[in-house]
Amino acid sequence: MRVLITGGGGFVGARLARALLAQGRFDGKAIDEIVLTDQFEPPADLRAHPRVTVRVRPLLQECATLRDEPFDAVFHLASAVSGECEADFELGLRSNLDSTRALLDALRARTEGGAVPAKLVFSSSIAVFGPDPAYPFPEIVGDDTLPMPQTSYGTQKLICEHLIADYTRKGYIDGRAARLVTVTVRPGRPNGAASSFFSGIIREPLAGEDAILPVSADVRHPVATVHTMVRSLIAVGEASREAFVGRSAITLPGLNVSVQQMLDALEAVAGPRVRARVKPQHDARIAGIVANWPRGVSTPRAHALGLHAEASFEDIIRQYIEDCRRDNPQALKGMD
Amino acid sequence: MRVLITGGGGFVGARLARALLAQGRFDGKAIDEIVLTDQFEPPADLRAHPRVTVRVRPLLQECATLRDEPFDAVFHLASAVSGECEADFELGLRSNLDSTRALLDALRARTEGGAVPAKLVFSSSIAVFGPDPAYPFPEIVGDDTLPMPQTSYGTQKLICEHLIADYTRKGYIDGRAARLVTVTVRPGRPNGAASSFFSGIIREPLAGEDAILPVSADVRHPVATVHTMVRSLIAVGEASREAFVGRSAITLPGLNVSVQQMLDALEAVAGPRVRARVKPQHDARIAGIVANWPRGVSTPRAHALGLHAEASFEDIIRQYIEDCRRDNPQALKGMD
Repeated sequence: MRVLITGGGGFVGARLARALLAQGRFDGKAIDEIVLTDQFEPPADLRAHPRVTVRVRPLLQECATLRDEPFDAVFHLASAVSGECEADFELGLRSNLDSTRALLDALRARTEGGAVPAKLVFSSSIAVFGPDPAYPFPEIVGDDTLPMPQTSYGTQKLICEHLIADYTRKGYIDGRAARLVTVTVRPGRPNGAASSFFSGIIREPLAGEDAILPVSADVRHPVATVHTMVRSLIAVGEASREAFVGRSAITLPGLNVSVQQMLDALEAVAGPRVRARVKPQHDARIAGIVANWPRGVSTPRAHALGLHAEASFEDIIRQYIEDCRRDNPQALKGMD
Repeated sequence: MRVLITGGGGFVGARLARALLAQGRFDGKAIDEIVLTDQFEPPADLRAHPRVTVRVRPLLQECATLRDEPFDAVFHLASAVSGECEADFELGLRSNLDSTRALLDALRARTEGGAVPAKLVFSSSIAVFGPDPAYPFPEIVGDDTLPMPQTSYGTQKLICEHLIADYTRKGYIDGRAARLVTVTVRPGRPNGAASSFFSGIIREPLAGEDAILPVSADVRHPVATVHTMVRSLIAVGEASREAFVGRSAITLPGLNVSVQQMLDALEAVAGPRVRARVKPQHDARIAGIVANWPRGVSTPRAHALGLHAEASFEDIIRQYIEDCRRDNPQALKGMD
């Protein structure tokens, strides 16, 4: 079978490709080829892999040729991120909405031409929920929570979910939308995202650097490792249509954790000296954004598929340390 | 001020235009011109009105010129209907999604050019709710019900609601989406819609003709007259931004009524001879569709705007009779 991963050069996309290559099969069939399309090149190991084809080009351009090419499964991860979409409205519409529509229409054209509907796994986000601060909002969001997106990014993700549900209902694709929680601990450097500190307060101290904590320690948020995300995306793609009982969107599991619990876990795993590198420095802008985010997820539909997040934040930190030992030991130079 | 009504040649659009002309003002300002755009000509009285401009052309073509034209308010009623969208997927996407996006982008271009954001009232539908028959569904739907559209029409309406909410949040428009219930009693002839009988079982007996009742008399459904719809659309357009407390979509009031209550009302208003012209003849296809529709609406947000549907189905029939006496007395030739 042939698998397409959009955003295949990115953090989640590359790890998804490696996981699929490692298991060799998807949805009961041997994987012959994985096509990674992105605006950026994927890591060298993937570029060198004999079963991987790399295409560095915009997704809208990629979609123009997809009508003539058979894919059995598509993981659609390519996306402009939240901050970009707020800063550049056109970019968000084009990258997140028009590109998805073009992808869906390319897959529809193939089905109308006689092909079996492709499996499509779309990476949505708990940003669909909003919440609207003017309304009472549940602390914990889940499959039955009314989405009220308060960003262009969340709006576009929600619209794509509904498009995918309708293309699926019509039989053009076999689509599923998985709402991801915040991935932590992300390797690399801090980025401009308001959620950046959720990784930074673990990553920087482990590397021997100070990290700013811009919010109160009682802030709560659902998080999961990229391993959980990749495992979940594959499981969502391999689940039967019936397992979705008429819906296409599913909220993926997360560990509902407070910042205090994250810091306690850091101390438990790496010691008080590492923990002491986290410096509280309130940032009203970031605290204000984060205050409007969900404080946790409830995910019975994902549990019914056998999906679970890490059981503790200690586990999440240990997983990050294990990844660094293999990929980048320098990132742990602050550990005792 | 200048007002644009898309779908201005249609059943609701023409009546909305007349109501606006009759009150002479909208949103506190005198109306200088109403532009009606539709694929069909509006009725003669509107064509002849000195403050009405008629443009018979597709909305996508209309939108191409809207960037160069100031409108203070837009009522966006143009839409392909449910049956059309199921039969022709492309048509639904083009008419309901691409046209709305083009309209929103034309209004955005004006705002970015320095204009005051236009008020936009969008006619959505309770078809956004679905429901999905695989899920337990509330008998009564309302502002807090999770939409799970099960038609392309409902999907497209819901997507437009979310686009309008986001363009509004960004300050490009001042948009509102009003979810309409089934309008009854519609004048004219039966059409292919599954909801057609809700009007037919009143309209045909009053005209002296037999009418088929294709569903059980215990079917319940929310309905309202076109007068309530027009009054509600204007009120939604004139409400303050604050009255929407952070949301843009609102479910309009309806009278939650059973078919039995409709028939009893017909007998009370027009007598047993008229009532006897309704002939039960079960139609499994129509009954199956209607079984998946909401059985009623709960509309506290609309009530907070002072909006209410008719208090009884007798009132709805009397309103229809009054309309016919003025416009088309022939439609009442079956009355004693």
